[in-house]
Amino acid sequence: MDNNIKSTMNMYARAVEDNLKKYTQANMEDLPQKTLLDAMKYSLEAPGKRIRPVLVYEFCRVCGGKQEDAAAAACAIEMLHTFSLIHDDLPAMDDDDFRRGRPSCHKAFTQAAAVLAGDELAILPFQIIAQDERLSSDKKVALIADLSSSAGIYGMIGGQMIDVENETRTDIDVDNLTYMCSLKTGALISTSCVMGCICAGADKKKADLARQYAGKLGLAFQIVDDILDVTSTTEELGKPVGSDEEQNKTTFVTLLGIEKARHMADRLTSEALEILNNFDNNEFLIKLTNELLTRRY
Amino acid sequence: MDNNIKSTMNMYARAVEDNLKKYTQANMEDLPQKTLLDAMKYSLEAPGKRIRPVLVYEFCRVCGGKQEDAAAAACAIEMLHTFSLIHDDLPAMDDDDFRRGRPSCHKAFTQAAAVLAGDELAILPFQIIAQDERLSSDKKVALIADLSSSAGIYGMIGGQMIDVENETRTDIDVDNLTYMCSLKTGALISTSCVMGCICAGADKKKADLARQYAGKLGLAFQIVDDILDVTSTTEELGKPVGSDEEQNKTTFVTLLGIEKARHMADRLTSEALEILNNFDNNEFLIKLTNELLTRRY
Repeated sequence: MDNNIKSTMNMYARAVEDNLKKYTQANMEDLPQKTLLDAMKYSLEAPGKRIRPVLVYEFCRVCGGKQEDAAAAACAIEMLHTFSLIHDDLPAMDDDDFRRGRPSCHKAFTQAAAVLAGDELAILPFQIIAQDERLSSDKKVALIADLSSSAGIYGMIGGQMIDVENETRTDIDVDNLTYMCSLKTGALISTSCVMGCICAGADKKKADLARQYAGKLGLAFQIVDDILDVTSTTEELGKPVGSDEEQNKTTFVTLLGIEKARHMADRLTSEALEILNNFDNNEFLIKLTNELLTRRY
Repeated sequence: MDNNIKSTMNMYARAVEDNLKKYTQANMEDLPQKTLLDAMKYSLEAPGKRIRPVLVYEFCRVCGGKQEDAAAAACAIEMLHTFSLIHDDLPAMDDDDFRRGRPSCHKAFTQAAAVLAGDELAILPFQIIAQDERLSSDKKVALIADLSSSAGIYGMIGGQMIDVENETRTDIDVDNLTYMCSLKTGALISTSCVMGCICAGADKKKADLARQYAGKLGLAFQIVDDILDVTSTTEELGKPVGSDEEQNKTTFVTLLGIEKARHMADRLTSEALEILNNFDNNEFLIKLTNELLTRRY
Protein backbone atom coordinates (compact mmCIF):
# COMPACT_ATOMS: atom_id res chain seq x y z
CA MET A 1 0.00 0.00 0.00
CA ASP A 2 1.15 3.57 -0.76
CA ASN A 3 2.84 4.84 2.41
CA ASN A 4 0.89 8.09 2.43
CA ILE A 5 -2.44 6.30 2.29
CA LYS A 6 -1.26 3.88 4.93
CA SER A 7 -0.30 6.58 7.41
CA THR A 8 -3.53 8.52 6.86
CA MET A 9 -5.59 5.32 7.21
CA ASN A 10 -3.68 4.47 10.38
CA MET A 11 -4.23 7.95 11.76
CA TYR A 12 -8.00 7.69 11.19
CA ALA A 13 -8.07 4.09 12.48
CA ARG A 14 -6.28 5.13 15.68
CA ALA A 15 -8.71 8.02 16.12
CA VAL A 16 -11.78 5.82 15.83
CA GLU A 17 -10.24 3.06 17.96
CA ASP A 18 -9.40 5.55 20.71
CA ASN A 19 -12.98 6.81 20.65
CA LEU A 20 -14.42 3.30 20.61
CA LYS A 21 -12.38 2.57 23.74
CA LYS A 22 -13.69 5.76 25.33
CA TYR A 23 -17.30 4.78 24.66
CA THR A 24 -16.78 1.29 26.12
CA GLN A 25 -14.36 2.02 28.95
CA ALA A 26 -17.01 1.84 31.69
CA ASN A 27 -15.87 0.25 34.91
CA MET A 28 -18.29 -2.65 35.08
CA GLU A 29 -16.21 -4.92 37.32
CA ASP A 30 -18.96 -5.08 39.91
CA LEU A 31 -21.88 -5.27 37.51
CA PRO A 32 -23.43 -8.61 36.52
CA GLN A 33 -23.83 -7.62 32.86
CA LYS A 34 -20.06 -7.22 32.43
CA THR A 35 -19.90 -10.15 29.98
CA LEU A 36 -21.92 -8.07 27.57
CA LEU A 37 -19.36 -5.27 27.59
CA ASP A 38 -16.54 -7.81 27.21
CA ALA A 39 -18.23 -9.34 24.16
CA MET A 40 -18.79 -5.90 22.60
CA LYS A 41 -15.18 -4.86 23.19
CA TYR A 42 -13.86 -8.18 21.89
CA SER A 43 -15.56 -7.61 18.56
CA LEU A 44 -14.90 -3.86 18.37
CA GLU A 45 -11.20 -4.35 19.12
CA ALA A 46 -10.66 -7.02 16.47
CA PRO A 47 -8.21 -5.67 13.90
CA GLY A 48 -9.97 -4.23 10.87
CA LYS A 49 -9.42 -1.70 8.11
CA ARG A 50 -11.98 0.71 9.61
CA ILE A 51 -12.91 1.71 6.05
CA ARG A 52 -16.28 3.14 7.05
CA PRO A 53 -14.93 5.49 9.75
CA VAL A 54 -12.17 6.53 7.33
CA LEU A 55 -14.87 7.52 4.81
CA VAL A 56 -16.80 9.47 7.47
CA TYR A 57 -13.70 11.37 8.54
CA GLU A 58 -12.49 12.00 5.01
CA PHE A 59 -15.81 13.22 3.56
CA CYS A 60 -16.13 15.51 6.56
CA ARG A 61 -12.65 16.86 5.78
CA VAL A 62 -13.18 17.38 2.04
CA CYS A 63 -16.43 19.20 2.84
CA GLY A 64 -14.51 21.58 5.12
CA GLY A 65 -15.39 20.05 8.50
CA LYS A 66 -13.11 19.42 11.47
CA GLN A 67 -12.09 15.90 12.42
CA GLU A 68 -13.74 16.16 15.84
CA ASP A 69 -17.06 16.94 14.17
CA ALA A 70 -17.01 13.49 12.59
CA ALA A 71 -15.86 11.57 15.69
CA ALA A 72 -19.29 10.42 16.91
CA ALA A 73 -20.50 9.39 13.45
CA ALA A 74 -17.23 7.53 12.77
CA CYS A 75 -17.67 5.51 15.95
CA ALA A 76 -21.36 4.98 15.26
CA ILE A 77 -20.76 3.46 11.83
CA GLU A 78 -18.03 1.14 13.10
CA MET A 79 -20.31 -0.07 15.90
CA LEU A 80 -23.19 -0.66 13.51
CA HIS A 81 -20.87 -2.53 11.14
CA THR A 82 -19.53 -4.63 14.01
CA PHE A 83 -23.10 -5.45 15.12
CA SER A 84 -23.82 -6.76 11.62
CA LEU A 85 -20.66 -8.94 11.64
CA ILE A 86 -21.55 -10.45 15.02
CA HIS A 87 -25.11 -11.34 14.00
CA ASP A 88 -24.14 -12.48 10.48
CA ASP A 89 -21.68 -14.96 12.00
CA LEU A 90 -24.33 -16.61 14.21
CA PRO A 91 -25.12 -20.28 13.52
CA ALA A 92 -28.67 -19.30 12.48
CA MET A 93 -27.20 -16.98 9.85
CA ASP A 94 -23.90 -17.52 7.98
CA ASP A 95 -22.50 -19.80 10.72
CA ASP A 96 -18.92 -18.51 10.57
CA ASP A 97 -16.58 -19.57 13.38
CA PHE A 98 -13.88 -17.06 12.47
CA ARG A 99 -13.87 -13.33 11.89
CA ARG A 100 -10.96 -11.00 11.35
CA GLY A 101 -8.57 -13.87 12.11
CA ARG A 102 -10.05 -14.70 15.52
CA PRO A 103 -12.94 -16.82 16.81
CA SER A 104 -16.30 -15.16 16.12
CA CYS A 105 -18.05 -13.48 19.04
CA HIS A 106 -20.41 -16.41 19.64
CA LYS A 107 -17.44 -18.80 19.73
CA ALA A 108 -15.36 -16.63 22.08
CA PHE A 109 -18.43 -16.01 24.30
CA THR A 110 -21.87 -17.60 24.02
CA GLN A 111 -24.57 -17.27 21.39
CA ALA A 112 -26.71 -15.36 23.88
CA ALA A 113 -23.89 -12.91 24.58
CA ALA A 114 -23.29 -12.50 20.84
CA VAL A 115 -26.96 -11.78 20.11
CA LEU A 116 -27.05 -9.21 22.92
CA ALA A 117 -23.66 -7.64 22.10
CA GLY A 118 -24.91 -7.20 18.54
CA ASP A 119 -28.17 -5.74 19.81
CA GLU A 120 -26.35 -3.20 21.95
CA LEU A 121 -24.00 -2.28 19.08
CA ALA A 122 -27.10 -1.70 16.91
CA ILE A 123 -28.52 0.80 19.39
CA LEU A 124 -25.45 2.46 20.95
CA PRO A 125 -24.64 4.32 17.68
CA PHE A 126 -27.83 6.33 18.05
CA GLN A 127 -27.10 7.06 21.70
CA ILE A 128 -23.58 8.25 20.89
CA ILE A 129 -24.81 10.61 18.20
CA ALA A 130 -27.72 11.89 20.30
CA GLN A 131 -25.43 12.56 23.28
CA ASP A 132 -22.54 14.11 21.32
CA GLU A 133 -21.52 17.47 22.72
CA ARG A 134 -20.31 19.12 19.49
CA LEU A 135 -23.08 18.56 16.95
CA SER A 136 -26.27 20.61 16.63
CA SER A 137 -29.64 18.90 17.10
CA ASP A 138 -30.39 19.35 13.40
CA LYS A 139 -27.18 17.56 12.41
CA LYS A 140 -27.82 14.78 14.92
CA VAL A 141 -31.30 14.19 13.53
CA ALA A 142 -29.99 14.16 9.94
CA LEU A 143 -27.24 11.68 10.91
CA ILE A 144 -29.64 9.39 12.76
CA ALA A 145 -32.18 9.47 9.92
CA ASP A 146 -29.56 8.50 7.34
CA LEU A 147 -27.80 5.92 9.50
CA SER A 148 -30.99 4.18 10.62
CA SER A 149 -32.54 3.98 7.16
CA SER A 150 -29.25 2.72 5.70
CA ALA A 151 -29.14 0.00 8.34
CA GLY A 152 -32.76 -1.08 7.89
CA ILE A 153 -34.97 -3.17 5.64
CA TYR A 154 -34.05 -1.10 2.56
CA GLY A 155 -30.39 -1.25 3.61
CA MET A 156 -28.01 -3.55 5.43
CA ILE A 157 -30.50 -5.72 7.32
CA GLY A 158 -32.68 -6.13 4.24
CA GLY A 159 -29.56 -7.13 2.29
CA GLN A 160 -28.63 -9.75 4.85
CA MET A 161 -32.18 -11.18 4.68
CA ILE A 162 -31.82 -11.52 0.91
CA ASP A 163 -28.35 -13.03 1.29
CA VAL A 164 -29.64 -15.67 3.72
CA GLU A 165 -32.56 -16.56 1.44
CA ASN A 166 -30.33 -16.64 -1.65
CA GLU A 167 -28.59 -19.69 -0.18
CA THR A 168 -31.49 -21.83 -1.33
CA ARG A 169 -32.01 -20.05 -4.67
CA THR A 170 -30.45 -21.18 -7.93
CA ASP A 171 -31.83 -18.43 -10.19
CA ILE A 172 -29.78 -15.46 -8.98
CA ASP A 173 -28.55 -13.19 -11.77
CA VAL A 174 -26.25 -10.16 -11.78
CA ASP A 175 -29.20 -7.81 -11.18
CA ASN A 176 -30.38 -9.73 -8.10
CA LEU A 177 -26.86 -9.92 -6.76
CA THR A 178 -26.22 -6.24 -7.42
CA TYR A 179 -29.42 -5.30 -5.55
CA MET A 180 -28.49 -7.53 -2.61
CA CYS A 181 -24.97 -6.07 -2.41
CA SER A 182 -26.16 -2.49 -2.76
CA LEU A 183 -28.17 -3.13 0.41
CA LYS A 184 -25.95 -5.47 2.43
CA THR A 185 -22.59 -3.80 1.84
CA GLY A 186 -23.42 -0.64 -0.09
CA ALA A 187 -25.86 1.01 2.29
CA LEU A 188 -23.40 1.39 5.19
CA ILE A 189 -20.67 2.62 2.85
CA SER A 190 -23.12 5.18 1.47
CA THR A 191 -24.17 6.43 4.86
CA SER A 192 -20.49 6.68 5.88
CA CYS A 193 -19.83 9.13 3.06
CA VAL A 194 -23.12 10.97 3.53
CA MET A 195 -22.66 11.26 7.30
CA GLY A 196 -19.22 12.77 6.71
CA CYS A 197 -20.89 15.48 4.59
CA ILE A 198 -23.59 16.05 7.22
CA CYS A 199 -21.00 16.39 10.01
CA ALA A 200 -19.29 19.13 7.99
CA GLY A 201 -22.58 20.91 7.32
CA ALA A 202 -22.33 20.33 3.55
CA ASP A 203 -25.37 20.95 1.35
CA LYS A 204 -27.69 18.28 -0.08
CA LYS A 205 -25.98 18.41 -3.49
CA LYS A 206 -22.65 17.37 -1.96
CA ALA A 207 -24.31 14.65 0.09
CA ASP A 208 -26.02 13.29 -3.04
CA LEU A 209 -22.70 13.17 -4.88
CA ALA A 210 -21.14 11.38 -1.92
CA ARG A 211 -23.98 8.85 -2.05
CA GLN A 212 -23.45 8.27 -5.78
CA TYR A 213 -19.72 7.81 -5.27
CA ALA A 214 -20.36 5.37 -2.43
CA GLY A 215 -22.80 3.34 -4.52
CA LYS A 216 -20.04 2.69 -7.07
CA LEU A 217 -17.37 2.12 -4.43
CA GLY A 218 -19.52 -0.24 -2.36
CA LEU A 219 -20.30 -2.49 -5.29
CA ALA A 220 -16.67 -2.50 -6.50
CA PHE A 221 -15.64 -3.33 -2.92
CA GLN A 222 -17.96 -6.35 -2.85
CA ILE A 223 -16.82 -7.60 -6.24
CA VAL A 224 -13.19 -7.39 -5.09
CA ASP A 225 -14.19 -9.31 -1.94
CA ASP A 226 -15.65 -12.07 -4.11
CA ILE A 227 -12.48 -12.16 -6.22
CA LEU A 228 -10.24 -12.31 -3.15
CA ASP A 229 -12.24 -15.22 -1.74
CA VAL A 230 -11.01 -17.18 -4.77
CA THR A 231 -7.52 -15.73 -5.28
CA SER A 232 -6.23 -14.79 -1.80
CA THR A 233 -4.88 -16.84 1.10
CA THR A 234 -6.25 -17.23 4.62
CA GLU A 235 -3.20 -15.38 6.01
CA GLU A 236 -3.65 -12.40 3.71
CA LEU A 237 -7.41 -12.23 4.20
CA GLY A 238 -7.61 -13.00 7.93
CA LYS A 239 -10.56 -15.29 7.26
CA PRO A 240 -11.01 -18.61 5.49
CA VAL A 241 -10.72 -18.33 1.69
CA GLY A 242 -12.87 -20.43 -0.61
CA SER A 243 -15.80 -20.15 1.82
CA ASP A 244 -18.10 -18.85 -0.93
CA GLU A 245 -17.51 -21.92 -3.09
CA GLU A 246 -17.71 -24.23 -0.10
CA GLN A 247 -21.12 -22.75 0.75
CA ASN A 248 -22.19 -22.92 -2.88
CA LYS A 249 -22.70 -19.18 -2.80
CA THR A 250 -23.57 -17.23 -5.91
CA THR A 251 -21.03 -14.39 -6.24
CA PHE A 252 -19.93 -12.00 -8.96
CA VAL A 253 -17.13 -14.47 -9.65
CA THR A 254 -19.40 -17.51 -10.05
CA LEU A 255 -21.75 -15.49 -12.29
CA LEU A 256 -19.17 -13.62 -14.39
CA GLY A 257 -15.85 -15.35 -13.92
CA ILE A 258 -12.81 -13.59 -12.45
CA GLU A 259 -11.92 -11.59 -15.55
CA LYS A 260 -15.34 -10.05 -16.17
CA ALA A 261 -15.81 -9.46 -12.45
CA ARG A 262 -12.53 -7.57 -12.31
CA HIS A 263 -13.57 -5.58 -15.38
CA MET A 264 -16.86 -4.63 -13.66
CA ALA A 265 -14.96 -3.52 -10.57
CA ASP A 266 -12.60 -1.48 -12.79
CA ARG A 267 -15.50 0.26 -14.51
CA LEU A 268 -17.25 1.09 -11.21
CA THR A 269 -14.00 2.43 -9.80
CA SER A 270 -13.52 4.74 -12.82
CA GLU A 271 -17.05 6.05 -12.37
CA ALA A 272 -16.46 6.54 -8.66
CA LEU A 273 -13.24 8.44 -9.34
CA GLU A 274 -15.05 10.72 -11.77
CA ILE A 275 -17.60 11.70 -9.11
CA LEU A 276 -14.74 12.58 -6.75
CA ASN A 277 -13.83 15.45 -9.10
CA ASN A 278 -16.69 17.35 -7.50
CA PHE A 279 -14.80 17.47 -4.20
CA ASP A 280 -11.80 19.65 -3.35
CA ASN A 281 -8.71 18.20 -1.65
CA ASN A 282 -9.66 14.77 -2.97
CA GLU A 283 -6.13 13.34 -3.31
CA PHE A 284 -6.47 10.88 -0.45
CA LEU A 285 -9.95 9.74 -1.56
CA ILE A 286 -8.63 9.10 -5.07
CA LYS A 287 -5.74 7.02 -3.75
CA LEU A 288 -8.02 5.16 -1.35
CA THR A 289 -10.51 4.35 -4.11
CA ASN A 290 -7.75 2.93 -6.29
CA GLU A 291 -6.27 1.09 -3.34
CA LEU A 292 -9.56 -0.63 -2.43
CA LEU A 293 -9.83 -1.94 -5.97
CA THR A 294 -6.31 -3.34 -6.13
CA ARG A 295 -6.13 -4.61 -2.54
CA ARG A 296 -4.97 -8.13 -1.81
CA TYR A 297 -6.67 -8.49 1.60
CA MET B 1 -61.28 -4.39 34.18
CA ASP B 2 -62.99 -1.05 34.82
CA ASN B 3 -64.86 -0.16 31.63
CA ASN B 4 -63.46 3.38 31.50
CA ILE B 5 -59.89 2.14 31.68
CA LYS B 6 -60.66 -0.52 29.14
CA SER B 7 -62.03 1.91 26.58
CA THR B 8 -59.16 4.37 27.06
CA MET B 9 -56.61 1.53 26.81
CA ASN B 10 -58.35 0.30 23.66
CA MET B 11 -58.36 3.79 22.18
CA TYR B 12 -54.60 4.14 22.73
CA ALA B 13 -53.95 0.56 21.56
CA ARG B 14 -55.89 1.22 18.34
CA ALA B 15 -53.95 4.44 17.80
CA VAL B 16 -50.56 2.76 18.15
CA GLU B 17 -51.65 -0.27 16.11
CA ASP B 18 -52.87 1.97 13.29
CA ASN B 19 -49.53 3.77 13.29
CA LEU B 20 -47.53 0.54 13.45
CA LYS B 21 -49.45 -0.58 10.34
CA LYS B 22 -48.66 2.71 8.65
CA TYR B 23 -44.94 2.33 9.33
CA THR B 24 -44.89 -1.23 8.00
CA GLN B 25 -47.37 -0.99 5.13
CA ALA B 26 -44.73 -0.82 2.39
CA ASN B 27 -45.60 -2.68 -0.78
CA MET B 28 -42.76 -5.17 -0.87
CA GLU B 29 -44.46 -7.79 -3.04
CA ASP B 30 -41.70 -7.60 -5.62
CA LEU B 31 -38.79 -7.25 -3.22
CA PRO B 32 -36.73 -10.26 -2.14
CA GLN B 33 -36.49 -9.10 1.50
CA LYS B 34 -40.29 -9.28 1.93
CA THR B 35 -39.98 -12.14 4.46
CA LEU B 36 -38.32 -9.69 6.81
CA LEU B 37 -41.30 -7.34 6.71
CA ASP B 38 -43.67 -10.28 7.17
CA ALA B 39 -41.77 -11.42 10.26
CA MET B 40 -41.77 -7.90 11.70
CA LYS B 41 -45.50 -7.47 11.08
CA TYR B 42 -46.27 -10.91 12.50
CA SER B 43 -44.69 -9.98 15.81
CA LEU B 44 -45.94 -6.39 15.89
CA GLU B 45 -49.50 -7.48 15.17
CA ALA B 46 -49.63 -10.12 17.90
CA PRO B 47 -52.27 -9.09 20.42
CA GLY B 48 -50.78 -7.30 23.41
CA LYS B 49 -51.74 -4.83 26.10
CA ARG B 50 -49.58 -2.10 24.53
CA ILE B 51 -48.83 -0.84 28.04
CA ARG B 52 -45.71 1.08 27.00
CA PRO B 53 -47.41 3.12 24.24
CA VAL B 54 -50.31 3.77 26.64
CA LEU B 55 -47.81 5.26 29.10
CA VAL B 56 -46.20 7.40 26.39
CA TYR B 57 -49.58 8.76 25.27
CA GLU B 58 -50.87 9.30 28.78
CA PHE B 59 -47.79 11.06 30.18
CA CYS B 60 -47.82 13.29 27.13
CA ARG B 61 -51.49 14.09 27.87
CA VAL B 62 -51.05 14.79 31.59
CA CYS B 63 -48.12 17.08 30.71
CA GLY B 64 -50.38 19.06 28.39
CA GLY B 65 -49.29 17.59 25.03
CA LYS B 66 -51.43 16.52 22.11
CA GLN B 67 -51.88 12.85 21.27
CA GLU B 68 -50.27 13.27 17.82
CA ASP B 69 -47.12 14.62 19.46
CA ALA B 70 -46.64 11.24 21.15
CA ALA B 71 -47.45 9.09 18.11
CA ALA B 72 -43.88 8.44 16.91
CA ALA B 73 -42.53 7.74 20.40
CA ALA B 74 -45.45 5.41 21.16
CA CYS B 75 -44.70 3.37 18.02
CA ALA B 76 -40.98 3.46 18.72
CA ILE B 77 -41.33 1.98 22.19
CA GLU B 78 -43.66 -0.80 21.00
CA MET B 79 -41.21 -1.71 18.24
CA LEU B 80 -38.29 -1.76 20.62
CA HIS B 81 -40.28 -3.90 23.07
CA THR B 82 -41.25 -6.29 20.26
CA PHE B 83 -37.61 -6.55 19.17
CA SER B 84 -36.70 -7.63 22.70
CA LEU B 85 -39.45 -10.27 22.76
CA ILE B 86 -38.34 -11.73 19.41
CA HIS B 87 -34.68 -12.01 20.46
CA ASP B 88 -35.47 -13.18 24.00
CA ASP B 89 -37.50 -16.06 22.57
CA LEU B 90 -34.61 -17.35 20.41
CA PRO B 91 -33.25 -20.83 21.19
CA ALA B 92 -29.90 -19.27 22.19
CA MET B 93 -31.73 -17.12 24.77
CA ASP B 94 -34.91 -18.13 26.65
CA ASP B 95 -35.92 -20.68 23.97
CA ASP B 96 -39.67 -19.96 24.08
CA ASP B 97 -41.79 -21.45 21.32
CA PHE B 98 -44.86 -19.40 22.17
CA ARG B 99 -45.45 -15.70 22.64
CA ARG B 100 -48.71 -13.84 23.11
CA GLY B 101 -50.60 -17.09 22.47
CA ARG B 102 -49.01 -17.77 19.07
CA PRO B 103 -45.82 -19.44 17.82
CA SER B 104 -42.77 -17.24 18.46
CA CYS B 105 -41.30 -15.39 15.50
CA HIS B 106 -38.50 -17.93 14.97
CA LYS B 107 -41.05 -20.77 14.96
CA ALA B 108 -43.44 -19.02 12.54
CA PHE B 109 -40.52 -17.98 10.32
CA THR B 110 -36.86 -19.00 10.63
CA GLN B 111 -34.24 -18.17 13.24
CA ALA B 112 -32.43 -16.02 10.69
CA ALA B 113 -35.61 -14.07 9.92
CA ALA B 114 -36.28 -13.64 13.65
CA VAL B 115 -32.78 -12.34 14.35
CA LEU B 116 -33.08 -9.87 11.48
CA ALA B 117 -36.69 -8.83 12.26
CA GLY B 118 -35.54 -8.09 15.81
CA ASP B 119 -32.54 -6.17 14.49
CA GLU B 120 -34.73 -4.02 12.27
CA LEU B 121 -37.20 -3.39 15.11
CA ALA B 122 -34.25 -2.28 17.26
CA ILE B 123 -33.24 0.36 14.70
CA LEU B 124 -36.52 1.46 13.11
CA PRO B 125 -37.64 3.25 16.32
CA PHE B 126 -34.80 5.74 15.89
CA GLN B 127 -35.63 6.24 12.21
CA ILE B 128 -39.29 6.88 13.00
CA ILE B 129 -38.46 9.48 15.61
CA ALA B 130 -35.78 11.14 13.45
CA GLN B 131 -38.15 11.36 10.48
CA ASP B 132 -41.25 12.47 12.39
CA GLU B 133 -42.80 15.60 10.90
CA ARG B 134 -44.24 17.12 14.07
CA LEU B 135 -41.43 17.09 16.62
CA SER B 136 -38.60 19.63 16.88
CA SER B 137 -35.01 18.47 16.44
CA ASP B 138 -34.35 19.13 20.13
CA LYS B 139 -37.24 16.90 21.18
CA LYS B 140 -36.17 14.17 18.76
CA VAL B 141 -32.63 14.18 20.15
CA ALA B 142 -33.93 14.05 23.74
CA LEU B 143 -36.25 11.15 22.86
CA ILE B 144 -33.51 9.20 21.07
CA ALA B 145 -31.01 9.77 23.89
CA ASP B 146 -33.45 8.48 26.51
CA LEU B 147 -34.78 5.58 24.43
CA SER B 148 -31.34 4.34 23.36
CA SER B 149 -29.79 4.50 26.82
CA SER B 150 -32.84 2.76 28.33
CA ALA B 151 -32.52 -0.01 25.78
CA GLY B 152 -28.77 -0.49 26.24
CA ILE B 153 -26.27 -2.14 28.55
CA TYR B 154 -27.52 -0.14 31.56
CA GLY B 155 -31.09 -0.90 30.52
CA MET B 156 -33.09 -3.60 28.78
CA ILE B 157 -30.27 -5.40 26.94
CA GLY B 158 -28.06 -5.38 30.04
CA GLY B 159 -30.98 -6.79 32.02
CA GLN B 160 -31.47 -9.60 29.53
CA MET B 161 -27.75 -10.44 29.74
CA ILE B 162 -28.05 -10.74 33.53
CA ASP B 163 -31.25 -12.78 33.20
CA VAL B 164 -29.55 -15.26 30.84
CA GLU B 165 -26.53 -15.60 33.14
CA ASN B 166 -28.74 -15.92 36.23
CA GLU B 167 -29.99 -19.26 34.88
CA THR B 168 -26.78 -20.90 36.07
CA ARG B 169 -26.54 -18.95 39.35
CA THR B 170 -27.92 -20.21 42.64
CA ASP B 171 -26.99 -17.22 44.81
CA ILE B 172 -29.48 -14.63 43.54
CA ASP B 173 -31.07 -12.52 46.26
CA VAL B 174 -33.82 -9.90 46.18
CA ASP B 175 -31.29 -7.11 45.51
CA ASN B 176 -29.78 -8.92 42.48
CA LEU B 177 -33.23 -9.71 41.15
CA THR B 178 -34.46 -6.16 41.69
CA TYR B 179 -31.45 -4.78 39.81
CA MET B 180 -31.98 -7.19 36.93
CA CYS B 181 -35.70 -6.34 36.69
CA SER B 182 -35.10 -2.60 36.93
CA LEU B 183 -33.01 -3.01 33.78
CA LYS B 184 -34.81 -5.72 31.85
CA THR B 185 -38.40 -4.60 32.39
CA GLY B 186 -38.08 -1.31 34.22
CA ALA B 187 -35.94 0.65 31.79
CA LEU B 188 -38.42 0.55 28.90
CA ILE B 189 -41.31 1.38 31.20
CA SER B 190 -39.30 4.34 32.50
CA THR B 191 -38.46 5.65 29.06
CA SER B 192 -42.12 5.28 28.05
CA CYS B 193 -43.19 7.67 30.80
CA VAL B 194 -40.22 10.01 30.27
CA MET B 195 -40.72 10.11 26.48
CA GLY B 196 -44.36 11.07 27.04
CA CYS B 197 -43.14 14.06 29.08
CA ILE B 198 -40.55 14.99 26.42
CA CYS B 199 -43.15 14.83 23.63
CA ALA B 200 -45.29 17.31 25.57
CA GLY B 201 -42.32 19.60 26.17
CA ALA B 202 -42.49 19.11 29.96
CA ASP B 203 -39.58 20.27 32.14
CA LYS B 204 -36.86 18.06 33.63
CA LYS B 205 -38.58 18.00 37.04
CA LYS B 206 -41.71 16.41 35.57
CA ALA B 207 -39.61 13.93 33.58
CA ASP B 208 -37.73 12.95 36.75
CA LEU B 209 -40.99 12.36 38.60
CA ALA B 210 -42.25 10.26 35.69
CA ARG B 211 -39.05 8.20 35.89
CA GLN B 212 -39.49 7.67 39.64
CA TYR B 213 -43.09 6.61 39.14
CA ALA B 214 -42.05 4.23 36.37
CA GLY B 215 -39.34 2.67 38.53
CA LYS B 216 -41.96 1.66 41.10
CA LEU B 217 -44.50 0.60 38.48
CA GLY B 218 -42.00 -1.46 36.48
CA LEU B 219 -40.87 -3.46 39.47
CA ALA B 220 -44.44 -4.02 40.68
CA PHE B 221 -45.34 -5.11 37.15
CA GLN B 222 -42.58 -7.73 37.15
CA ILE B 223 -43.52 -9.05 40.58
CA VAL B 224 -47.12 -9.45 39.44
CA ASP B 225 -45.81 -11.27 36.33
CA ASP B 226 -43.95 -13.70 38.58
CA ILE B 227 -47.06 -14.24 40.70
CA LEU B 228 -49.26 -14.82 37.63
CA ASP B 229 -46.81 -17.41 36.31
CA VAL B 230 -47.74 -19.46 39.40
CA THR B 231 -51.41 -18.58 39.86
CA SER B 232 -52.83 -17.96 36.37
CA THR B 233 -53.81 -20.27 33.52
CA THR B 234 -52.38 -20.56 30.01
CA GLU B 235 -55.68 -19.25 28.58
CA GLU B 236 -55.73 -16.16 30.79
CA LEU B 237 -52.05 -15.42 30.28
CA GLY B 238 -51.71 -16.26 26.57
CA LYS B 239 -48.44 -18.04 27.31
CA PRO B 240 -47.51 -21.20 29.19
CA VAL B 241 -47.82 -20.85 32.98
CA GLY B 242 -45.38 -22.49 35.34
CA SER B 243 -42.52 -21.82 32.92
CA ASP B 244 -40.45 -20.07 35.60
CA GLU B 245 -40.57 -23.13 37.85
CA GLU B 246 -39.98 -25.49 34.94
CA GLN B 247 -36.85 -23.51 34.03
CA ASN B 248 -35.76 -23.41 37.66
CA LYS B 249 -35.86 -19.64 37.48
CA THR B 250 -35.32 -17.47 40.54
CA THR B 251 -38.27 -15.07 40.77
CA PHE B 252 -39.74 -12.80 43.41
CA VAL B 253 -42.13 -15.66 44.19
CA THR B 254 -39.40 -18.27 44.66
CA LEU B 255 -37.41 -15.84 46.84
CA LEU B 256 -40.25 -14.35 48.88
CA GLY B 257 -43.27 -16.61 48.46
CA ILE B 258 -46.54 -15.40 46.96
CA GLU B 259 -47.75 -13.48 50.00
CA LYS B 260 -44.62 -11.40 50.57
CA ALA B 261 -44.22 -10.84 46.83
CA ARG B 262 -47.77 -9.51 46.66
CA HIS B 263 -47.06 -7.30 49.67
CA MET B 264 -43.97 -5.88 47.93
CA ALA B 265 -46.00 -5.17 44.79
CA ASP B 266 -48.66 -3.47 46.96
CA ARG B 267 -46.10 -1.24 48.61
CA LEU B 268 -44.48 -0.25 45.31
CA THR B 269 -47.89 0.52 43.86
CA SER B 270 -48.74 2.80 46.80
CA GLU B 271 -45.47 4.66 46.32
CA ALA B 272 -46.11 4.95 42.58
CA LEU B 273 -49.60 6.32 43.22
CA GLU B 274 -48.19 8.93 45.58
CA ILE B 275 -45.81 10.23 42.88
CA LEU B 276 -48.76 10.56 40.51
CA ASN B 277 -50.12 13.32 42.77
CA ASN B 278 -47.59 15.61 41.10
CA PHE B 279 -49.48 15.33 37.81
CA ASP B 280 -52.79 16.96 36.89
CA ASN B 281 -55.59 14.99 35.24
CA ASN B 282 -54.12 11.82 36.68
CA GLU B 283 -57.40 9.85 37.07
CA PHE B 284 -56.65 7.39 34.28
CA LEU B 285 -53.04 6.85 35.41
CA ILE B 286 -54.25 6.11 38.95
CA LYS B 287 -56.77 3.58 37.70
CA LEU B 288 -54.21 2.02 35.35
CA THR B 289 -51.63 1.69 38.12
CA ASN B 290 -54.12 -0.09 40.35
CA GLU B 291 -55.30 -2.22 37.46
CA LEU B 292 -51.79 -3.42 36.60
CA LEU B 293 -51.31 -4.56 40.17
CA THR B 294 -54.55 -6.51 40.36
CA ARG B 295 -54.52 -7.90 36.80
CA ARG B 296 -55.13 -11.57 36.18
CA TYR B 297 -53.39 -11.78 32.78
